[in-house]
Amino acid sequence: MALRTATRQLSRHASPATLSLTAARRQTRGLATPASTPPTTPSKGPTAIVFMNMGGPSTVPEVGDFLSRLFADADLIPLGRFQKYLGPLIAQRRTPKIEKQYAAIGGGSPIRKWSELQAAEMCKILDQTSPETAPHKPYVAFRYAAPLTETMYAQLLADGFGGGKGGRAVAFTQYPQYSCSTTGSSLNDLWKWREKLEGTGRGGEVKANGEDGSIQWSVIDRWPAHKGLVEAFAQNIEATLATYSEADRKDVTILFSAHSLPMTVVNRGDPYPAEVAATVYAVMERLKFSHPYRLVWQSQVGPQPWLGAQTSDTVTNYVANGKKNLVLVPIAFTSDHIETLYELDEEVIGESGCKDSIRRVESLNGNPVFIQALADIAKAHLEGGVQCSKQMALRCPGCTNAKCEASKDFFASGPGGAVEA
Amino acid sequence: MALRTATRQLSRHASPATLSLTAARRQTRGLATPASTPPTTPSKGPTAIVFMNMGGPSTVPEVGDFLSRLFADADLIPLGRFQKYLGPLIAQRRTPKIEKQYAAIGGGSPIRKWSELQAAEMCKILDQTSPETAPHKPYVAFRYAAPLTETMYAQLLADGFGGGKGGRAVAFTQYPQYSCSTTGSSLNDLWKWREKLEGTGRGGEVKANGEDGSIQWSVIDRWPAHKGLVEAFAQNIEATLATYSEADRKDVTILFSAHSLPMTVVNRGDPYPAEVAATVYAVMERLKFSHPYRLVWQSQVGPQPWLGAQTSDTVTNYVANGKKNLVLVPIAFTSDHIETLYELDEEVIGESGCKDSIRRVESLNGNPVFIQALADIAKAHLEGGVQCSKQMALRCPGCTNAKCEASKDFFASGPGGAVEA
Repeated sequence: MALRTATRQLSRHASPATLSLTAARRQTRGLATPASTPPTTPSKGPTAIVFMNMGGPSTVPEVGDFLSRLFADADLIPLGRFQKYLGPLIAQRRTPKIEKQYAAIGGGSPIRKWSELQAAEMCKILDQTSPETAPHKPYVAFRYAAPLTETMYAQLLADGFGGGKGGRAVAFTQYPQYSCSTTGSSLNDLWKWREKLEGTGRGGEVKANGEDGSIQWSVIDRWPAHKGLVEAFAQNIEATLATYSEADRKDVTILFSAHSLPMTVVNRGDPYPAEVAATVYAVMERLKFSHPYRLVWQSQVGPQPWLGAQTSDTVTNYVANGKKNLVLVPIAFTSDHIETLYELDEEVIGESGCKDSIRRVESLNGNPVFIQALADIAKAHLEGGVQCSKQMALRCPGCTNAKCEASKDFFASGPGGAVEA
Repeated sequence: MALRTATRQLSRHASPATLSLTAARRQTRGLATPASTPPTTPSKGPTAIVFMNMGGPSTVPEVGDFLSRLFADADLIPLGRFQKYLGPLIAQRRTPKIEKQYAAIGGGSPIRKWSELQAAEMCKILDQTSPETAPHKPYVAFRYAAPLTETMYAQLLADGFGGGKGGRAVAFTQYPQYSCSTTGSSLNDLWKWREKLEGTGRGGEVKANGEDGSIQWSVIDRWPAHKGLVEAFAQNIEATLATYSEADRKDVTILFSAHSLPMTVVNRGDPYPAEVAATVYAVMERLKFSHPYRLVWQSQVGPQPWLGAQTSDTVTNYVANGKKNLVLVPIAFTSDHIETLYELDEEVIGESGCKDSIRRVESLNGNPVFIQALADIAKAHLEGGVQCSKQMALRCPGCTNAKCEASKDFFASGPGGAVEA
């Protein structure tokens, strides 16, 4: 049963290649950037655009390695000085259970497929809207699954970026809202491999960002309330609302669900909860506050306190109170993954006793409105000439992670400095 | 020293009566509603506008009563079935300390002065911009200090509202962001007194909202990202930034500080943290993300876990890391009170060792841009014809408070139903 449901869900997104991006641009006419006039100066490209995300195992046999990397990441799951020993142990213990979950959603995570599609399609749009930085070359760097950061970096060098030849690359986080556990961890990893492959690791002195023909990096580190992102979420919510009868639709409560954080991270001053709330508010503004809603938090594990209210408890409580028309909106990931396809669909909805009236909004995946938004964000960044947001240069008030300091210093350095949103 | 500082601070806001609201309207031209044409139908007024807030003791001898009411409020501080005994005990124990704090800020809370001024000035604007509901009569109802809800309600009845004669009143929360602990508690109290004074308490049957000549209540229950509110905050932040030298200004970090909540309330699904974050994001958008910032939380008490990062820890940590140009922005209260004048000014800033470089942004108080915003919010509500926001009708996922259910049912009932933001 679980397998069948998952197959049905995957098949809903089955033909990304057939998406019409012309239609996407038509749909977002108000948001799209105008077609550029031909460049009067030669292009400064090529420009590498690197999509950063956590990634997921594309096949069931990759689950073990994926979990090992995940539990080895002290930026995500700080286990103290025993991380090296505890991490693999926990990963090993959890592997069989998580393998079953990936098997249930069709045999692996679709995140690589979607990321590669999104990056490639976005670059095609950028080649048209930003000819002065064309050609734009798409890369994907995952934190815990192939293609890993080091693989991506080696590919960049093989493709003629850096390594003495210079060139520009944009690290584009695919987490709309910034957390030190997610985007921060990816950037720390990127900085580590950059030091190994283009810094001291090559036997020379540490080079500054873009110095002596190394790659000139800049970062798109957050975009929680970008109009195109908000539009894509809002359209998908409207599409789900339209599946209810008129009477039921009036009764719907919208539950925005984001991956939770341990309270130690929240209390350290991680900006994520506030940025997720900003996305939610912007989407509800766009929907003219047509329905009551709550922001709730999913996927907490272990005995430590995490930020709530929990998604699963919320659904249980509302159902118990007779509130059965619930629309779940994954608001902090843009592609489907185990937390949508298994946790929300199979567990939260599947076990609610109200599978017909509790419905999940489609993830953004290959949504053309979303891909146009990515292109608009990238274009604005390329035009802005800044290294990263001012926000990114600020460490959390309770941060004691020396890697964060070094990584932030590196990415905020360069001709543009830290500016913009 | 504390007294001197407090006097200086109070004197900054000393002449509210001299504020030019014409100037206010000039300043917010883009936001202000256009002057109305003469009404073609007779006015539906008078309309009572009731400002709801927690209040504060206007003089030091009122501190004891204030704290007694505060610790008796299970909506704010749930102490279980021993509330009746524990509340007064805790209040009594804290009174001497809090008396000293009120003495240090000039002998009492200025919140009544500001609330009465804001309500009166707003009604003057409304009489011009919304003649069809004029005259507008200002009232103030505090939860823990004079004028209490019951005093306000008795005054309404004495002034000819309700009691068989009908009439319309708007409960206008002065907390921009909704929490069950604040606006929720005020509404539960208003509902209680309404039942006592116009419902069963008068010996008759319970009347529905506005039935049989009782007052027709509607509620403005939240306005976290209203443009005028955001503009007023942003202008005040810009004014504080302008007091730094150019070099220091570039280095400023903005810390938005809001009253924290116990994690039990957060995990119940209280909407406040997300709505405060929405305000912060809207203000930073208006400031074009000119500086790095964090949303931090103040005023936690007792041994239970509260939402962080804490304001005081944040300042301590940033100062220790050499980050001394900090601008503190009270973002969840609109008038000065003990949490700004004492906790932020005397404790957080006063004890930071960086009194010259850590500066607090002025509270909104008698700010004409803010008062114009209040008038715009009220006008939109009066025109909208709705009872309250859709959001207000939704109880928290973890709510077990029967009062909330009854009070929400009451306020959401009526000709308009629950609509708008």
